[in-house]
Amino acid sequence: MIATTQQNMTTELDLGSMGGPPRNWKGIGIAMVVILGVMSLVSLSIFLLTPDESHLLLLSRLTLENLESEDFRIHDPCATWLNENEVSLCTQEGQVLIHNLSTNLTTTLLDNSTLVFSQSFTASFAIYTVASGEITDLTPSEEDISVLQYAAWGPQGNQMVYVFENDIYYKPDVSSKAMRLTATGRNGMVVNGLSDWTYEEEILLKYPAFWWAKDGARLAYLSINNSATPFMEIHHFLGGIYPSNVLYPYPKAGSRIPSASLFVVNLYGPAHTLEMIPPDSQNSRDSYISMVSWISSTRLTVRWLNRVQNQSVLCVCEATTGACSERHQMAMEFWHYNQRQEEPLFTADGSLFYLILPAKQGARGDFLHIASLPAQTSTPSVSPRFLTSGNWDVTSLCALDEENDKIYFLSTEESQQSRHLYSVELGGVFHRQCLTCNLFERCSVFKADFSPNQTYFTLYCLGPGVPKVTIHSTSDPYRYTVVEDNSLLAMSLETKRLSETVFQTLSSDNSDLDLKMCLPPGYGGNLHPLLIIIDSIPGRQSVTEEFALGWPEVLSSLHGVALAWIGSRSRISQGQKSSALDPLKLSSLNIKDKLGVVEWLMQLPYIDGRRIAVYGKGLGGYLGLKMLTATDQMFKCAAVMAPITDFKLYSAAFSERYLGLPNKEEHSYMAASLLDDIHKLKNENFLLIHGTADARVHFQHSAELLSRLVKIEANYSLQLYPDEGHTLREERSNQHLHRTLLHYLHNCLEYDPFLNIEEEEEEDEEEE
Amino acid sequence: MIATTQQNMTTELDLGSMGGPPRNWKGIGIAMVVILGVMSLVSLSIFLLTPDESHLLLLSRLTLENLESEDFRIHDPCATWLNENEVSLCTQEGQVLIHNLSTNLTTTLLDNSTLVFSQSFTASFAIYTVASGEITDLTPSEEDISVLQYAAWGPQGNQMVYVFENDIYYKPDVSSKAMRLTATGRNGMVVNGLSDWTYEEEILLKYPAFWWAKDGARLAYLSINNSATPFMEIHHFLGGIYPSNVLYPYPKAGSRIPSASLFVVNLYGPAHTLEMIPPDSQNSRDSYISMVSWISSTRLTVRWLNRVQNQSVLCVCEATTGACSERHQMAMEFWHYNQRQEEPLFTADGSLFYLILPAKQGARGDFLHIASLPAQTSTPSVSPRFLTSGNWDVTSLCALDEENDKIYFLSTEESQQSRHLYSVELGGVFHRQCLTCNLFERCSVFKADFSPNQTYFTLYCLGPGVPKVTIHSTSDPYRYTVVEDNSLLAMSLETKRLSETVFQTLSSDNSDLDLKMCLPPGYGGNLHPLLIIIDSIPGRQSVTEEFALGWPEVLSSLHGVALAWIGSRSRISQGQKSSALDPLKLSSLNIKDKLGVVEWLMQLPYIDGRRIAVYGKGLGGYLGLKMLTATDQMFKCAAVMAPITDFKLYSAAFSERYLGLPNKEEHSYMAASLLDDIHKLKNENFLLIHGTADARVHFQHSAELLSRLVKIEANYSLQLYPDEGHTLREERSNQHLHRTLLHYLHNCLEYDPFLNIEEEEEEDEEEE
Repeated sequence: MIATTQQNMTTELDLGSMGGPPRNWKGIGIAMVVILGVMSLVSLSIFLLTPDESHLLLLSRLTLENLESEDFRIHDPCATWLNENEVSLCTQEGQVLIHNLSTNLTTTLLDNSTLVFSQSFTASFAIYTVASGEITDLTPSEEDISVLQYAAWGPQGNQMVYVFENDIYYKPDVSSKAMRLTATGRNGMVVNGLSDWTYEEEILLKYPAFWWAKDGARLAYLSINNSATPFMEIHHFLGGIYPSNVLYPYPKAGSRIPSASLFVVNLYGPAHTLEMIPPDSQNSRDSYISMVSWISSTRLTVRWLNRVQNQSVLCVCEATTGACSERHQMAMEFWHYNQRQEEPLFTADGSLFYLILPAKQGARGDFLHIASLPAQTSTPSVSPRFLTSGNWDVTSLCALDEENDKIYFLSTEESQQSRHLYSVELGGVFHRQCLTCNLFERCSVFKADFSPNQTYFTLYCLGPGVPKVTIHSTSDPYRYTVVEDNSLLAMSLETKRLSETVFQTLSSDNSDLDLKMCLPPGYGGNLHPLLIIIDSIPGRQSVTEEFALGWPEVLSSLHGVALAWIGSRSRISQGQKSSALDPLKLSSLNIKDKLGVVEWLMQLPYIDGRRIAVYGKGLGGYLGLKMLTATDQMFKCAAVMAPITDFKLYSAAFSERYLGLPNKEEHSYMAASLLDDIHKLKNENFLLIHGTADARVHFQHSAELLSRLVKIEANYSLQLYPDEGHTLREERSNQHLHRTLLHYLHNCLEYDPFLNIEEEEEEDEEEE
Repeated sequence: MIATTQQNMTTELDLGSMGGPPRNWKGIGIAMVVILGVMSLVSLSIFLLTPDESHLLLLSRLTLENLESEDFRIHDPCATWLNENEVSLCTQEGQVLIHNLSTNLTTTLLDNSTLVFSQSFTASFAIYTVASGEITDLTPSEEDISVLQYAAWGPQGNQMVYVFENDIYYKPDVSSKAMRLTATGRNGMVVNGLSDWTYEEEILLKYPAFWWAKDGARLAYLSINNSATPFMEIHHFLGGIYPSNVLYPYPKAGSRIPSASLFVVNLYGPAHTLEMIPPDSQNSRDSYISMVSWISSTRLTVRWLNRVQNQSVLCVCEATTGACSERHQMAMEFWHYNQRQEEPLFTADGSLFYLILPAKQGARGDFLHIASLPAQTSTPSVSPRFLTSGNWDVTSLCALDEENDKIYFLSTEESQQSRHLYSVELGGVFHRQCLTCNLFERCSVFKADFSPNQTYFTLYCLGPGVPKVTIHSTSDPYRYTVVEDNSLLAMSLETKRLSETVFQTLSSDNSDLDLKMCLPPGYGGNLHPLLIIIDSIPGRQSVTEEFALGWPEVLSSLHGVALAWIGSRSRISQGQKSSALDPLKLSSLNIKDKLGVVEWLMQLPYIDGRRIAVYGKGLGGYLGLKMLTATDQMFKCAAVMAPITDFKLYSAAFSERYLGLPNKEEHSYMAASLLDDIHKLKNENFLLIHGTADARVHFQHSAELLSRLVKIEANYSLQLYPDEGHTLREERSNQHLHRTLLHYLHNCLEYDPFLNIEEEEEEDEEEE
């Protein structure tokens, strides 16, 4: 009606200007009043019927440019305990400070102009004498210009060790001459005191492989021998006239693995080295050492794992004799993700130790709890005594405070997605106290780092709010100092329209599956596309309330895409025996679980079931592609980075942990391979991304996939990052990656009216 | 008017069926007559005004499936002269036949079940005794299971040589023991009798590097030493648990090049080897031997080139003494494409020789013609005597027939795009005769292979019609036997709607540029997009009437895309001195020339100047990308395969020929590099294709390009072929490549009405 009136009016005015019939001014006036009235009513009703989102309109959406700016950075204050009262901190400006908790004074150790740090496998190390401001390059006396592989201070005075050309050197004092502790180092073949690729990435999960006794009198170290291990060669294309190569020992499934031996060297007096003899059950050529920790100045605890890592033996070794005796043997399930490296806590007298063990909790199956075991006896028949119980897991032991008869630990007691810090008394009714519940607003995921004698602890709040770091007194946890509150980030986020995070627990086959969803601002108004994000570490609890801010959050905020992270089963459900769960079934179970959750998500009223994509990297990339092969165009597209495509080509320590030895489990390897399922990818649409110098998932995986995709003429896009590894190093590469993912997923998930109409027509035809 | 009448009628009928007012049958009748009349007139006018393309409607368009079918294959009958009267042929079914031209009888030598042949660097060779049908594996007596690098018969009896572990072995007879002729072979370092990568791909352009004297008494061979040459390493990803490597000497620009020496060994009597001493002007470490040919049983002619290949020295060497004397020295221009390998023709008495030399032809500049020079004197002052002249080029010498005082040769006399076979008399007025002009319909590009004494010649018609192979008598060229006429292909093509080929010569800077266009069936009716195809061999005359049937022809026939091949300048135009043409200018001139032609093409009434793409491979890929950098979104997109991106990373023999030595011509190399121009690619759209095992243009070139494209966030697509080389080996890879190119170029060149409207609006805005 409005349109018609306007049209008439325009016609009349036009005619008027041309000197036509006389104008009906009264009519025009009435018409205008009517128009204005109708328009006001329309505006009013729009205003009244729209929910109040006016505050949202003032907020802008999150962009990749935001993430790349300083305003949105999370700062790590690198808090490190120097002694019982002092902690060293680094500022955002690059200064190194020392904060004394008893005096509450902060002093500057290094200002930001003193040193520029770099991180790499081999590096230059320098000693900075704080008093004089003098810098001395740390180089072995014999060699002048060579670089060290690693250097670290010891616990006493200025004692230190460094690793040079795969051998360990010791300096009792900065000014004293270095003493060579080992002589077996051979480039690439034998390394002392450091991890090789396998130990750093799969077994110890850290580079240094030496441990100081607390009094500094002894040093334990691994000697890792790769002389029988096959080497992998990585091509580097950039920068030279001819490409160069990097060779390193990388045992693929079924190949000879590194053989690691543990030695202890006596540092005071004449150096004397003893090997710690592994227990009879462990063949040194086919086992791993996953944990070493000093109990006292002469005794250590060591965990040996068998090659397929389903049996662990915890030993106590006498550093003075090299004799090791078994203290606890257990079957390891691979979803006990971080238990391989977990250090048991020993009492000072060495009579007892505490560790995390699975305990049956009625119908719900096994949960992980704190247990104590006697350390003196070697009879394996002694049952553990549990300090905690309930339908929740202890995820980490933090500290044993014998003075106050307490153990500090993290657990999921509050909720499956949280990690609160608790203490439990070592006796009586095992009274338990939560130290962090209701401590800070929007903080439910914590980790803690205690000072040597547990007077203080550094507390890291990891989310769901902006991360912060505080230091607390153990005696009064509510007294604390804020070390970093990321206030700039918090302020910046307040100007943004962010997605809302929602948690859900779904039950499947008597097992709980956790789900984290990120729903775009103002969701519910219309249908949103969905991106499923698959975690790359099996058995790790990926669904926590940890703060996250990356390209997926931008995709959600900027383009209105809902996100979902689906957790893995974290325990054996009732009725399933551990041995009945063969690894192959588990892999297919994993995909079945995830697809079940996707189907549930598709039914949500605000999710457009026709626009679902999946993203994963490494193992996540593998699972993402496996999900495509298990369905028929259920996913509109997938983006996979560095996917494992065949476990035979992947690291022995990883593949064998999940699938066993390839010569024994050939069928499992074949069933798990993506390469044999390739025809199922023919009608799927995906983006394949790989760094050509990936040392973890070799480019070979993508090459094998590509050669098969070429044969079946599949529909894929490709993005390569030359000379980049599993994690992209160059900032520009990362920016490019994020833009590529955002662009690809946005394009794929965008609402396409024509496509939907066509699909509907096809469906109609099928119905007919 | 028709519509209105119909509408009325329908209304009346509807009303009638509902029992409305009585029907006006007369009115309906009149209306129907009127309708039929009008419709007939419309149909008639459509019929009369449409050009008669009814025959085209019966023809189908060409598809890639067609090209992959047997019906569209070109068969090579592999005709080889066995002696003056006998030629061996292979059939499409795999049989090997012998055809006797004097008796006109054909016998079967091998049927298709006897042997399956394979082609590769190292292969198994077997001797098939025709009389007995017995197969004997040809292996060196000392080694049982090893493979040979090469084997070949000699000119006399059953004498033969083979190369095993880089050394040459001689067998006077099949049954006799092999005699080792060389002992210097070292894997990868020194090879005797065979080309290394550089010689095979850039210098000799063939794998065997030995030459039998006509009487079989002597063997000349190259010994190529790469002990100072850097090696290139190619990764092979597929098939193994660990990737494998192939190492081979590949001198990149500025690196040490292989050093080649020519030896002659005496085969009759005790083996005696002599080195042919290069002339003083050639430093053996920095020169190439590009041609070796026997003149008589004791003399050979050899061409040495200096390192940057702009100076050639033709010598005659005495096999009995090793002394070589210079016969002709000349400056080589790089567009004298095949003159480096061209063998001069010597008279039987060795007094004279004939070769192709540039001759000034008035204002049009230099053209290539046949010249004779005395072979006995070494005075360089003797001027060549030219046998031919005119504004056309002799492209190849075929045979010297002293009995009839004739030289047979190919030339462009008929037209720039043709290659006809001519004879010219050696004396008198140098009477010239065209043997192939008007010989066959749709045949204007020929090559010829003469029997040892020029009684017969095999004639290859290469186009523009379907290729055919015939054998002619020299005395009466019009008497011939058809060996292969590809009749199946010819028949298959008759059912297809093919594009029309058009030639054009454009003038630019006093120089002619040849242009070949492929115009879609029925062009002219509307605007067609255009694909520019750039040849990868500089100086080669790419614009000929040779028959071609590949993915570009499918793109043209199936998707209506016009194709254009732009030739390079093939001569120095008047006023330009050879030395004034520095290589750098030439490279930029090349691009300027091509862009000039593109601009001319854009003005054609049937070309849509907004939809132009470019395709090139190797050097063509380089030029394609350079054209993108030289323009601003002039091309809608480009598809480049294995592009050279920096000549420093490319073969020494190639890069230095065009750009000189990198330490002397640093500026030329920098200006030629694509990597420094990268920001000009930011707004361009292209597809980058590379085989990861490309031994010619290493994947390194694309890696360097990609790492820069990532930095500037350019808009490109990527396709990799794992383990494939510069030419894809796997049939499936080739099929995938063709589909990828077709899909990409069709999508890019498709008419997008929205895009054009937007562009017009933008232009309008700019005008305002």
